[in-house]
Amino acid sequence: MTSATQSAAPAARRNLGIAAPLRVSVAAAVNAVRRTTPLAQSLTNFVTINLVANAQLAVGGTAAMHYSGEEAAALDHGASKATYINMGTLLEPFRTEYPAAARDAAEHGLPWVLDPVGAGAGELRGAILRAFAATPPDIIRCNASEAIALAGIWGLDGADSRSRAGVEASDEVDEAIPAAHALARFTGGVVSVSGAVDLVTDGDADYRLPGGSRWMTKITGAGCSLGGVTATYACVTDPLTAAVSAALHYNRAADSAEREANGPGSFQTAFLDALWNTTADEIAQSPIYMEKDMS
Amino acid sequence: MTSATQSAAPAARRNLGIAAPLRVSVAAAVNAVRRTTPLAQSLTNFVTINLVANAQLAVGGTAAMHYSGEEAAALDHGASKATYINMGTLLEPFRTEYPAAARDAAEHGLPWVLDPVGAGAGELRGAILRAFAATPPDIIRCNASEAIALAGIWGLDGADSRSRAGVEASDEVDEAIPAAHALARFTGGVVSVSGAVDLVTDGDADYRLPGGSRWMTKITGAGCSLGGVTATYACVTDPLTAAVSAALHYNRAADSAEREANGPGSFQTAFLDALWNTTADEIAQSPIYMEKDMS
Amino acid sequence: MTSATQSAAPAARRNLGIAAPLRVSVAAAVNAVRRTTPLAQSLTNFVTINLVANAQLAVGGTAAMHYSGEEAAALDHGASKATYINMGTLLEPFRTEYPAAARDAAEHGLPWVLDPVGAGAGELRGAILRAFAATPPDIIRCNASEAIALAGIWGLDGADSRSRAGVEASDEVDEAIPAAHALARFTGGVVSVSGAVDLVTDGDADYRLPGGSRWMTKITGAGCSLGGVTATYACVTDPLTAAVSAALHYNRAADSAEREANGPGSFQTAFLDALWNTTADEIAQSPIYMEKDMS
Repeated sequence: MTSATQSAAPAARRNLGIAAPLRVSVAAAVNAVRRTTPLAQSLTNFVTINLVANAQLAVGGTAAMHYSGEEAAALDHGASKATYINMGTLLEPFRTEYPAAARDAAEHGLPWVLDPVGAGAGELRGAILRAFAATPPDIIRCNASEAIALAGIWGLDGADSRSRAGVEASDEVDEAIPAAHALARFTGGVVSVSGAVDLVTDGDADYRLPGGSRWMTKITGAGCSLGGVTATYACVTDPLTAAVSAALHYNRAADSAEREANGPGSFQTAFLDALWNTTADEIAQSPIYMEKDMS
Repeated sequence: MTSATQSAAPAARRNLGIAAPLRVSVAAAVNAVRRTTPLAQSLTNFVTINLVANAQLAVGGTAAMHYSGEEAAALDHGASKATYINMGTLLEPFRTEYPAAARDAAEHGLPWVLDPVGAGAGELRGAILRAFAATPPDIIRCNASEAIALAGIWGLDGADSRSRAGVEASDEVDEAIPAAHALARFTGGVVSVSGAVDLVTDGDADYRLPGGSRWMTKITGAGCSLGGVTATYACVTDPLTAAVSAALHYNRAADSAEREANGPGSFQTAFLDALWNTTADEIAQSPIYMEKDMS
Repeated sequence: MTSATQSAAPAARRNLGIAAPLRVSVAAAVNAVRRTTPLAQSLTNFVTINLVANAQLAVGGTAAMHYSGEEAAALDHGASKATYINMGTLLEPFRTEYPAAARDAAEHGLPWVLDPVGAGAGELRGAILRAFAATPPDIIRCNASEAIALAGIWGLDGADSRSRAGVEASDEVDEAIPAAHALARFTGGVVSVSGAVDLVTDGDADYRLPGGSRWMTKITGAGCSLGGVTATYACVTDPLTAAVSAALHYNRAADSAEREANGPGSFQTAFLDALWNTTADEIAQSPIYMEKDMS
C-alpha cells in the first residue's frame, strides 16, 4: 500500500466504545505504573535527559540513566523492566554501547523503545540505527519524518513515500503511515508517530489519538520524554497498550497544562504537575479512533 | 556494632538546645555562603547537572562544572574552595579524570564531597570508587543502599548488614548505620545518608534530621543537588557543619515548597525559590536529634 | 586605546531616536524569527543545554544540538542558518569537532557565534580557542573576563588591560572595552559583553544596553542561552542587529520576569514565558546608548 491509495480509499474509522478492551488495558496500565513504580532504564540525549527522568517519575515510574552496554546488562539482570534508547547528541562510544544495550534487552526478553531522533543525519547515527535491525525495538516513538527516514535506513517500503509525486496527505503524520506500517511489520512491534493527531499502529490496526497542546512543540523534549514514558508503560503492559497509554497520558496532561500556561516556561511546569494529577479514567476514556487496514 | 544491636539498644536521643554550638555553626555557615558566594566545582552526572548548579546558586554559592582532572587542578589553584564528585552517567574518560580531581583536592588540602550514585553497578564505577580510597572524601552524601555498597567496595564492616537475616530496622536509613559508621571512620570524615529521617555521622555521634517532602523522591536530582550544596557549605565550614547545614537547608526548603506545590513540576520551582528565601534561623533551629554511639 | 584613556576621555553618548535604523532592524529581526522559526544549531555545554534549546524555542526559533563536525556540515547543507559554539564542559573529542564545526560554518558562509566560557582555563580549551582564530566567529557573546582572556589567547591588544595598574572602570564591562574592540577588529565581527549595562560593539561604535534582572546571575545559563538566542537572531539578520536584538530581548524579558519572581525557580519559569510574550516594539524601543569611538 501507499499513502496515495491510503488517501484514495480511507479505512473505516470509529471511536472505541467506553468498555473497549484497549481502554480497560490502558486504565490498568496507568494504575499499575502508579502502584508498582517500575524502573525503565534510558540511554538518551543530553538536551532533554532531565525532562525524560522527571516525566517518568511524574507518571509514577522510576528512572535510571546511563551510556553503557555493561550497565544496561546489569540493570536488565536487576530491577529494570524496559529500556529506552534515544538517538540525540551521539558521542563516538555510543556506536557500540547503544547496540549492546538493545541486544541485552532482547536477550533478556525485555521490551525496548527506540526514539530515532535525527534519523538520516550522519554516519554514526546511521551505523547505530542499522545495527538495531538485528534486535529491533518493540516500540518506535518518533515523528513523521523520522519514521520515513528509518524505514529507508532499514530498506523497507514506505521509505520513499515522501518523495513520491502527488501524495495527498492531510498532515505530516498521514504522510508517514506507509513507513509506520512497514516499520511495525519489520519489527513485529508497534510504531507511535507523534503529530497533531497521533498515530499508534501495530501494522494491522491504526489508532488515531487527537488532542495535546501547541506548546508541546515550543518546549524541548516533549517527544523524547514521551519515548521515556512509553518505556515506563512497557514495563507493565504489552507494546500496543504501552504506546497508546503513554500518548493518551501526554495528550490529556497537555490539554490540562495549556489551560494554566502563560508561555512555554509555565507550560512545562504545569505539564509535569498534570502528568501526576491526570486520572486513569481521564486517560483511558480519551478519544481513540481505530482504523482497520483494508489493503 | 550491627543494626540489630543498634535496634536492640538504641542510643540516647535528644534534640539539641537552641544555643547548641552546632546550631551556631550552622547559622554562621548559611550566612557565610550568602555573604561570600563561594565557588564549589562539580564533576557530576548529565541528568541533574543543571539542578545541581541552580541549587548551588539558590543557596548563595557559585558553580563551575567540568569533567577534567586538569581543570580541577586549575580551579583548586584559583577560586574553588571545594569539589563535588557524583558517580552518575559515567563515560570511559572519567576512569582517570575523577580520581585525578579527588587527588588534586586532597593535595590542595581542599574538602571534597562524594555522591556514590549507583555504587555496586558496573566495572567502571567500581574502579573509580576503589581509586577514591587513596584520597577519601571529606563528606559522603548518599542513600542507604549506596552507603552499604560503598562500604563493601572498600572492604569495610557494615557492608553486609543488609544481607544479614533478621535485621530489624525502622527505615532504610537505620539499616545503613553500621556502613555509615564504617565509612566515616575509614575516611576520617562525615557521612550523610538521606531518607525519611536523614542521618549525618562522623562515626562517633549521629545526628538525625527529620522533615522534608515526599515530592523530593518525585523529582530527579534531589539527592545529587544536595551533594552539590553540601560542597558549597564545605567551602565555608567543617565537614560536619557542612553536611548538617545542607541537609537542614534542604529539609526546610522542601517543607516550604510542599505547601505551594500542585505536583512535581511546581514543587521543583517552589523548592529553588525556597532555597533562596529560607532564613538562617529557620535552618539552624530545625530539629536535630543527637545520638551518641555507646558501643 | 586603553580603558584608562576610555575613562579619561569618554565618548559622546546618546540614546538612539525612536526611528533609528538599528531599531527598525531589531523590530524586523524579532518578527522574522517569530514568522520563520529559523534553525540555529548548537554545540554547547551539558549544564545549560536544555535552557539554550528552550530559550531558542521561546523567542520563536528552532533548535538542534549535537557534538559533531560531521553533523554540523550536514545541517549547514540543510536547514541550519547559524551555529552556536559554547566552551563549557569540554570533552576530549571536542578538540577537533568544535573547530570543524566552525570551519564548516565559515565555508558555507553561515554566521557562527562563540561563547568562550572559561577562556583561560585548561590546555584543551586553549587549544580549541586558538584553532578558532583561523575561521573567527561573527559574534562573540561573553562576560568581561572572558573577553579579556580571549584577546590574550589570540595575542591581541586589550588582553592585559585588567592587569594594568590604575585602571579606572565603572564596572566590569567597562574594563573589557579595549579587549572587546580588539576582538571585534580581529574577527571583523561583533562582540557582545554581558553585564550590568551590556556592551555590543563592532569595533567602531559601542552600543550600551541597560536593564535586565539581578536574578540573571542566580540561575545557571543566562549567558549561555543568550549566546544561543544570538545565533537564532543571526539566522535572520546581520551580526550587529542580531547581537543587539538578542541582548534587548533578554533585558526586557528579565525586567518582566523579575516582577513575577519569588526566587530563582519562579524567575526562570517567568523568564521563558516572557521571552515568548515580549513584543517586537518593547524590544526595539529599549534604551540603546550609542558611543562612537573617538580614538
